[in-house]
Amino acid sequence: MITIIRFETDYQEGAHPEILARLSLTNYEQTSGYGVDVHTEHAKELIRGVLSRPSAEVFFMVGGTQTNATLIKYFLSPCEGVISVSSGHINVHESGAVEATGHKVLTLPGHDGLIDPDELREYMRAFYSDPTYDHMVQPGMVYVSYSSELGTLYSRSQLADIKAVCDEYNLRLFIDGARLGAGLVSDASDMTITDIAGLCDAFYIGGTKNGALFGEAVVFPQPEKFNLKTFRTLIKQQGGLLAKGRLLGLQFEVLFEDGLYFENARHANIQAMKIRAAFQEKNIPFLIESFTNQQFPILTNEQHKKLSQKFSYETWQPLEDGKIAVRFCTSWATTDENINQLIQEIKNL
Amino acid sequence: MITIIRFETDYQEGAHPEILARLSLTNYEQTSGYGVDVHTEHAKELIRGVLSRPSAEVFFMVGGTQTNATLIKYFLSPCEGVISVSSGHINVHESGAVEATGHKVLTLPGHDGLIDPDELREYMRAFYSDPTYDHMVQPGMVYVSYSSELGTLYSRSQLADIKAVCDEYNLRLFIDGARLGAGLVSDASDMTITDIAGLCDAFYIGGTKNGALFGEAVVFPQPEKFNLKTFRTLIKQQGGLLAKGRLLGLQFEVLFEDGLYFENARHANIQAMKIRAAFQEKNIPFLIESFTNQQFPILTNEQHKKLSQKFSYETWQPLEDGKIAVRFCTSWATTDENINQLIQEIKNL
Amino acid sequence: MITIIRFETDYQEGAHPEILARLSLTNYEQTSGYGVDVHTEHAKELIRGVLSRPSAEVFFMVGGTQTNATLIKYFLSPCEGVISVSSGHINVHESGAVEATGHKVLTLPGHDGLIDPDELREYMRAFYSDPTYDHMVQPGMVYVSYSSELGTLYSRSQLADIKAVCDEYNLRLFIDGARLGAGLVSDASDMTITDIAGLCDAFYIGGTKNGALFGEAVVFPQPEKFNLKTFRTLIKQQGGLLAKGRLLGLQFEVLFEDGLYFENARHANIQAMKIRAAFQEKNIPFLIESFTNQQFPILTNEQHKKLSQKFSYETWQPLEDGKIAVRFCTSWATTDENINQLIQEIKNL
Amino acid sequence: MITIIRFETDYQEGAHPEILARLSLTNYEQTSGYGVDVHTEHAKELIRGVLSRPSAEVFFMVGGTQTNATLIKYFLSPCEGVISVSSGHINVHESGAVEATGHKVLTLPGHDGLIDPDELREYMRAFYSDPTYDHMVQPGMVYVSYSSELGTLYSRSQLADIKAVCDEYNLRLFIDGARLGAGLVSDASDMTITDIAGLCDAFYIGGTKNGALFGEAVVFPQPEKFNLKTFRTLIKQQGGLLAKGRLLGLQFEVLFEDGLYFENARHANIQAMKIRAAFQEKNIPFLIESFTNQQFPILTNEQHKKLSQKFSYETWQPLEDGKIAVRFCTSWATTDENINQLIQEIKNL
Repeated sequence: MITIIRFETDYQEGAHPEILARLSLTNYEQTSGYGVDVHTEHAKELIRGVLSRPSAEVFFMVGGTQTNATLIKYFLSPCEGVISVSSGHINVHESGAVEATGHKVLTLPGHDGLIDPDELREYMRAFYSDPTYDHMVQPGMVYVSYSSELGTLYSRSQLADIKAVCDEYNLRLFIDGARLGAGLVSDASDMTITDIAGLCDAFYIGGTKNGALFGEAVVFPQPEKFNLKTFRTLIKQQGGLLAKGRLLGLQFEVLFEDGLYFENARHANIQAMKIRAAFQEKNIPFLIESFTNQQFPILTNEQHKKLSQKFSYETWQPLEDGKIAVRFCTSWATTDENINQLIQEIKNL
Repeated sequence: MITIIRFETDYQEGAHPEILARLSLTNYEQTSGYGVDVHTEHAKELIRGVLSRPSAEVFFMVGGTQTNATLIKYFLSPCEGVISVSSGHINVHESGAVEATGHKVLTLPGHDGLIDPDELREYMRAFYSDPTYDHMVQPGMVYVSYSSELGTLYSRSQLADIKAVCDEYNLRLFIDGARLGAGLVSDASDMTITDIAGLCDAFYIGGTKNGALFGEAVVFPQPEKFNLKTFRTLIKQQGGLLAKGRLLGLQFEVLFEDGLYFENARHANIQAMKIRAAFQEKNIPFLIESFTNQQFPILTNEQHKKLSQKFSYETWQPLEDGKIAVRFCTSWATTDENINQLIQEIKNL
Repeated sequence: MITIIRFETDYQEGAHPEILARLSLTNYEQTSGYGVDVHTEHAKELIRGVLSRPSAEVFFMVGGTQTNATLIKYFLSPCEGVISVSSGHINVHESGAVEATGHKVLTLPGHDGLIDPDELREYMRAFYSDPTYDHMVQPGMVYVSYSSELGTLYSRSQLADIKAVCDEYNLRLFIDGARLGAGLVSDASDMTITDIAGLCDAFYIGGTKNGALFGEAVVFPQPEKFNLKTFRTLIKQQGGLLAKGRLLGLQFEVLFEDGLYFENARHANIQAMKIRAAFQEKNIPFLIESFTNQQFPILTNEQHKKLSQKFSYETWQPLEDGKIAVRFCTSWATTDENINQLIQEIKNL
Repeated sequence: MITIIRFETDYQEGAHPEILARLSLTNYEQTSGYGVDVHTEHAKELIRGVLSRPSAEVFFMVGGTQTNATLIKYFLSPCEGVISVSSGHINVHESGAVEATGHKVLTLPGHDGLIDPDELREYMRAFYSDPTYDHMVQPGMVYVSYSSELGTLYSRSQLADIKAVCDEYNLRLFIDGARLGAGLVSDASDMTITDIAGLCDAFYIGGTKNGALFGEAVVFPQPEKFNLKTFRTLIKQQGGLLAKGRLLGLQFEVLFEDGLYFENARHANIQAMKIRAAFQEKNIPFLIESFTNQQFPILTNEQHKKLSQKFSYETWQPLEDGKIAVRFCTSWATTDENINQLIQEIKNL
């Protein structure tokens, strides 16, 4: 039997071994529950330090869907909705979690998974020039992903432009950072994590897809702009407050003590670039240009049949000419050996 | 500096070391996400085996509050509410998670944390004899905890009686098993886990408070009675579907391979009984008779002041005579050494 | 066949004839929809005039349940709940409309249908002294009814006391005025409508139960304290924005042009006092002392049997001694003839 | 000062005079509240008669938005959404009322306001062939409007085709009949009201836009397929249960006793066809071919400027060439005199 080598997702292994080691090391410490413990406090300090924002507020949650739903519920009043590209995770793959909190997702067409700032501005202008707008869901915030669901990246000026529209129309701006690491360390990125913090009202630093067992760190760079007194209560209401909260704290301690968070992401991207190069060498086209850990080559049926005998990856989208766009995903855990086997097979296509 | 020995909760340490060992052992296995993996499948099989119910459906979720809210949302139609004792966890300490799904918690007075079956029957009779009942929230299910928030236990005949009322009035019955282990292995229990499965529509086997890092196993003993096709989608919507779902699977594998789940609970109860005996010996009364891992002695202010210098525990309820009811909680991790120090201090009160 | 004379409710007839006349008179006027019309504007002006509050904001809605749910949804943030006596309309007879907006009703025991200000203060004190309060629904507002569901009335000092607690704990105060008229014109009342406006954040002036076909006027006496820009959108979302909004406007025009609103209520109370006197004369006791248009005599079975042959009224509550508390309700439409027939029968009991 | 003649909507006047007459006639009748009265019963019988469906269930509600939200909440389970064209009323002009009940609106592109049955079939096929579909909102029902928001009409075969897709994929089918009358009596319609009843799971007969003061009659043609026991409770929860329910009953009595409902619609359509002819005669194009009471001519700025000095109508959509699509709407109340004045002006354009 051949063992299939998996490139489906970036969460198919456990966690970086340093995290497991820390779990063992701290196992018998006694701490209070629900995120009131020294590890959580320390992890918050580390993140504030990385951001050079000593007053930033940080909260830890278990997973991305609950994080998005909680933030959006927090930021919106009852008649407001959240703007997203139609391919946004909240609009497609979260089972209606946003609507379950009572809010509409207002969609803009995506450009390789990204919002066009000018289209956003025009959308807002048109909205308020419609005389019936007070019978409509009011745009209250913008949701973007960095890197996006398609592995693409906003430039700093694009994001600044989006922020300017948000400021003009009183929209809060929230960045889904499930794959923040892969975005920031990409060669195609012109932003740092402090830029991110300076250009939004909240974002999260995704752990699940970057070497943690699970966990996302929500950051409010300017907490003085919001009333966060009951945010923990909201996390609890939304089912996101972990009893053994220190598990989240200690994972982010490990990730941010010595830069492991960025190292993990760098490793994932390097492996992805190797895959990319191999497909390019064979003149196999891509659905999208991505310089992060997700690669979307377009395969013929024959190529797909051949590759899928040894490797698993996601079938992304059937195309009109009978070809198929697929996704290869790398992570902190992707080994050179597996990459080399894949490259060899690509050569043989 | 004195290190405070903590008896606050049963989730103040990490996890049973065998769980950590398994995490390390399986760390580099590649699996699909979201609970579609061999560990999850195996854990389900083990649980079905323990229940002698090969057709039972099992789902794994991260925490208790999200489990309760998801189950209640699943079981109720829009005009229905859930009956609970007023001290029920869903009515007090879940930040309105049930109401956030659109449903009312209908409260009955508790008797040491338990519903009286006769009061439930009378409540239902009175409800349907009120001519305005169709302007009211309809009772659609009953929520009970085993063991209860006060450490107490339904007898088998009490639970059967509650189930009979449920059957008569078309109420679904759901058992919160956050502390199921401590309940079942208690000397005061006359039920087994198969009894539990036979007397409800769903229950959950709590892992967080019994040696897992986190995790609860939801069981539908008779899945043919319900449409569970979209239950996973609902878990996702409620933010409870873990990306690395295998983490839940492998923890419950460890807990149910060789009876560790019950061993952990037995250890917790044995340690609790020692505490209980020590207070009894000093003629210190209890708020409630509990034979599980939560003990509620009533302390004078002086006693409280003395004990709290070395130990932490929860202050439960100020009493009218100036005394104070407190809670000591034990777990799989409570050491003999810590117990002995506590007993020594109790003797010296 | 005997025609039963009905004293069940105050909404069992159509509307005051002047309202019907105005409907006919204005029938062919063409106006914009959704409350943007001259009648609505005029009605708002009239109400502002009665209140001597030229800057008050007024909105018109169709019915009480939707008004309560909309106001409560408006005033609360996601983790907040509304405090009410357990007999409050929102807690009993609105089919869970408040919970359907995601919020919990937090109950205090009623004293003849009223909140005791001291108990409210103690409730708030206890809430914030509970160390686990951030796992609980936070009290965000207080809901009271004037007159109450039991026909009783807060004194001005009681209401001021409640307002003081609200101010201390940042609770918004909302007065359900479904029967505001009957309350204000009662001999037992020491308040005017301007007092009401001065002691709350919002209240509504009930039309349905006081001579309108339907309709409630929501008043924000100090709109500058709130962001009401999207309140109309919220009314629309909650299904309360009437297409032919002018119907609401013109009814309140009629009711407030020459004091008809208060006349209607006065008539109802006078008729109720006659019923009250008749029962008193027969030494028939009351469940509650009410000086408004709801009367709650306690009948023996025999008396009930006799009276119910000619009259209908609500059976309110079976009592322990086999007697039964019932409710007689009067309105703007209750005729002297019907009252006299009832009094005659009471005499013959 | 010139009085502007309004063609903005079909709800800008009061009600058909027979309805006002009946209101006066019945004003002092005493009836129970909430739709339990002889007028409501009689109206239900009349509607069942018109449908030749003696077992149909009929409920009366106040307005369209609350009717749509209530039906959709009733038909969907928590993870299901409702399919609509993107121009559907529920997706645009109901302030997020559907999302406020927790459900997503899943949009299909409209074809002159209509769903293409083949696109619906393809949408469903694609949905279930997506391997990640259980992370997505499941389509649970289809929402269509007859006549549509753009005045257009499904043919009988189109609707039957949509119903076939619904049956294949277990989708409930709901028809918004806010303008059902104008649709059914249109020369372009090939359906009767019994056809409508035979091709859906529920529909409503719109009163507000066809001569009633307000009111919509919800019909379940095959109630045995659903559990409707608590539907009234749901109406109450959604704020749609009118206290003086008889007002709804007696309006629908008047509308369905002698065919007034269809007469009103016929009048509206005849007046609309005159407007249509006048624009056609001037070779003024239309945004859409409509044979119901909404007409969408495309005006130049000059034409618009001229017409809007004497008439009001809705500006529908700015077009790319600087022209503007507008909407003229007629109703039961549109007089010949007003029509003639409008036609004269059109001639003079």
